[in-house]
Amino acid sequence: MREPLKVAIAGLGTVGAGTVKLLQEQSDLIARRCGRPVTVTAVSARTAGRDRGFDMTGITWFDDAVEMADTADCDVVVELIGGADGVAKRTVQAAMARGRHVVTANKAMLAHHGTQLALEAEKAGVVLAYEAAVAGGIPIIKTLREGLAGNRITSLYGILNGTCNYILTTMRETGRDFADVLEEAQALGYAEADPSFDIDGVDAAHKLSILTSLAFGSPVDFGAVSVQGIRNVSALDIEYAELLGYRIKLLGIARETEFGVEQRVHPTMVPIASPIAHVEGVFNAVVTEGDFVGRTVLEGRGAGAGPTASAVVADVIDLACGRHGFTFGVPAAELKAHTVGALDKLTGAYYIRLQVLDVPGVFADIAAALRDAQVSMEQILQRGRSPGEIVPVVMTVYETEGSALRQALERIEALDAVVEPPHVIRIEEL
Amino acid sequence: MREPLKVAIAGLGTVGAGTVKLLQEQSDLIARRCGRPVTVTAVSARTAGRDRGFDMTGITWFDDAVEMADTADCDVVVELIGGADGVAKRTVQAAMARGRHVVTANKAMLAHHGTQLALEAEKAGVVLAYEAAVAGGIPIIKTLREGLAGNRITSLYGILNGTCNYILTTMRETGRDFADVLEEAQALGYAEADPSFDIDGVDAAHKLSILTSLAFGSPVDFGAVSVQGIRNVSALDIEYAELLGYRIKLLGIARETEFGVEQRVHPTMVPIASPIAHVEGVFNAVVTEGDFVGRTVLEGRGAGAGPTASAVVADVIDLACGRHGFTFGVPAAELKAHTVGALDKLTGAYYIRLQVLDVPGVFADIAAALRDAQVSMEQILQRGRSPGEIVPVVMTVYETEGSALRQALERIEALDAVVEPPHVIRIEEL
Repeated sequence: MREPLKVAIAGLGTVGAGTVKLLQEQSDLIARRCGRPVTVTAVSARTAGRDRGFDMTGITWFDDAVEMADTADCDVVVELIGGADGVAKRTVQAAMARGRHVVTANKAMLAHHGTQLALEAEKAGVVLAYEAAVAGGIPIIKTLREGLAGNRITSLYGILNGTCNYILTTMRETGRDFADVLEEAQALGYAEADPSFDIDGVDAAHKLSILTSLAFGSPVDFGAVSVQGIRNVSALDIEYAELLGYRIKLLGIARETEFGVEQRVHPTMVPIASPIAHVEGVFNAVVTEGDFVGRTVLEGRGAGAGPTASAVVADVIDLACGRHGFTFGVPAAELKAHTVGALDKLTGAYYIRLQVLDVPGVFADIAAALRDAQVSMEQILQRGRSPGEIVPVVMTVYETEGSALRQALERIEALDAVVEPPHVIRIEEL
Repeated sequence: MREPLKVAIAGLGTVGAGTVKLLQEQSDLIARRCGRPVTVTAVSARTAGRDRGFDMTGITWFDDAVEMADTADCDVVVELIGGADGVAKRTVQAAMARGRHVVTANKAMLAHHGTQLALEAEKAGVVLAYEAAVAGGIPIIKTLREGLAGNRITSLYGILNGTCNYILTTMRETGRDFADVLEEAQALGYAEADPSFDIDGVDAAHKLSILTSLAFGSPVDFGAVSVQGIRNVSALDIEYAELLGYRIKLLGIARETEFGVEQRVHPTMVPIASPIAHVEGVFNAVVTEGDFVGRTVLEGRGAGAGPTASAVVADVIDLACGRHGFTFGVPAAELKAHTVGALDKLTGAYYIRLQVLDVPGVFADIAAALRDAQVSMEQILQRGRSPGEIVPVVMTVYETEGSALRQALERIEALDAVVEPPHVIRIEEL
């Protein structure tokens, strides 16, 4: 058997400790599959001495991750510190500068510095692998980079944040409102104390920008992602979605258009019959469309120690077996910019919920505003009548340009009978 | 750019011609992704001269695939002839003996000779790749071999035959019976003139035996697969399944048990809420359970020129990039036999449909037969009453040993009021 692959691990939170445990518990299996052992030789974390549930025999402790990346006896540095900049990025750069391969789960770092790091990795002749950065339990990076490599990808979309999917699923199943379910998710450890990264869509946008680069061969362009989170999705919206035959999911969507590749993250109404509608709770899913292969759907756990460690170790095993590829599918210098921001020209169908005073003539005013902006209404729904009171009115409109919709909504919002800004959710007939 | 990878293709049916077309149409994309061009240098088929929709410039024609494998100017031989033995196997062996890598879509050959061919490939120092042999549009081979390589797989199951899934889906959607839908599927080209390989479960069993070997590190053991096809699934069974909250799918299932890994292919009732229940028509899906990653679901088109060519080309691209692995995940000599046949000790829950004469006392006789064999009934269902006539009676029974169920069914079948052998379908609460 060939000599071991030596691995240093920076960051010993849930995922870091889980990765060491996986490598130790499955060491026989992994050695058989690689034709060589994989050994953890060094670890680093902020606090030494704590029992993290694995055996430190033969492992060198470092207080400083950057020093470890530079000086430890290792072939691979696994970065599980997190954060777009700071220690995480310095650790990765130190490792690559020393000719060490890097495995990372750090989506924020890749979303902000992915192209630059890919260039540095190629210059150093090392691999920068990141299966764990997007949808842990789903081998979507390998699938896009290798499994579907014969295809031109025309679109991809997915549920990329387990926290949001858990909240939306629980809201639907219990009828409870957002704030209430978020609080419970925090108590259960499914949401962070500061949940904004998740619920405002930033985490999903990080992941989407990485997938877009890999799928479409473009530099990572996080700034081009149009992002909207789930804070404004109400129990009422979820109830109306069901009535209309939809479910609400926070989707990341990247799609080839005539203007370039658009990237967006937002709550989306998807038909109940579509496969993605049935991906519930903490599960993630990614759907890709390739020109030869057609539609492929991958589903699995998006986060947690086990799934994320599994993804980290898959990258480590690839290195042990000598399998490697370009960071974003093609040489970093050949990545071609063709992502675009949200354009008014891009069309979409929408769900619109209004709170209106139930007085004669209000429907006619709304209909006129839509008509004058050339927006075609598909249906309008008001359950029950309550003259003189405030009631929800829900509409869906057919494919329309963003600018036309905005024009109509401005006029509707200005109506006396309309008492709060319209709630708008995009509909995708996926 | 490095020198081209030269590919010879044996067999120019739908998939073979589709593969040449894909390699030609996407040649720029593939060269960028591989860092080198991939060129088709030779092809072979039974009939020369026919226009197959691709450009023959620069491609050498061979009448004899074995001769091509032996003498063509190539690095890789792609075998798309089919059949467990004969020309296909000789072509593969000739290629390997000459130190050429092999890419194949031939599940029958791998199911019958997989372990032997893996040994020969390793001895020759070449790769034997077969992503296209199982569920074309789904990168399940790569996922098991690489993406989930840090996990011990505890079970896998899937819809592995698109023809059967199309027939079962259409039966459910239209209420029509098996023979009728099969005839239509044949007319539409979704089923072969001789459909027995598909509808009797043999094709699914071939694929299952390959997945089992890769997932559990055992020699390919097609003979150990317990196989039952869909010929006996009636419109009535599908209707009752819906009433009971199930859908009927032809599943291939491989699962670790205390006796070893069991492999079975049979019509299965799965809960409507399970993800696999919603995989319809010609789509395939594979669900895996790994000890760290948990459940992963992959879904895509199972057959057809595009998806299968996509899988073939993924293997070719891996070779162009220098990525390779052990044929069945570990060195062939280390594959450990631990598959077992269908054992009476293995327990299961079942749906049983009887055709009975509606006379007093028949329910009591059936219940007594079950009780005496220690089989616990969950529910019994008879819609409407027709004294003196033959009516369907449907039961479900809780987890029971195979031998106990057989004993009960023998006694039930012998009852005067029971007019045909019981129809039994296994229930899996997946």
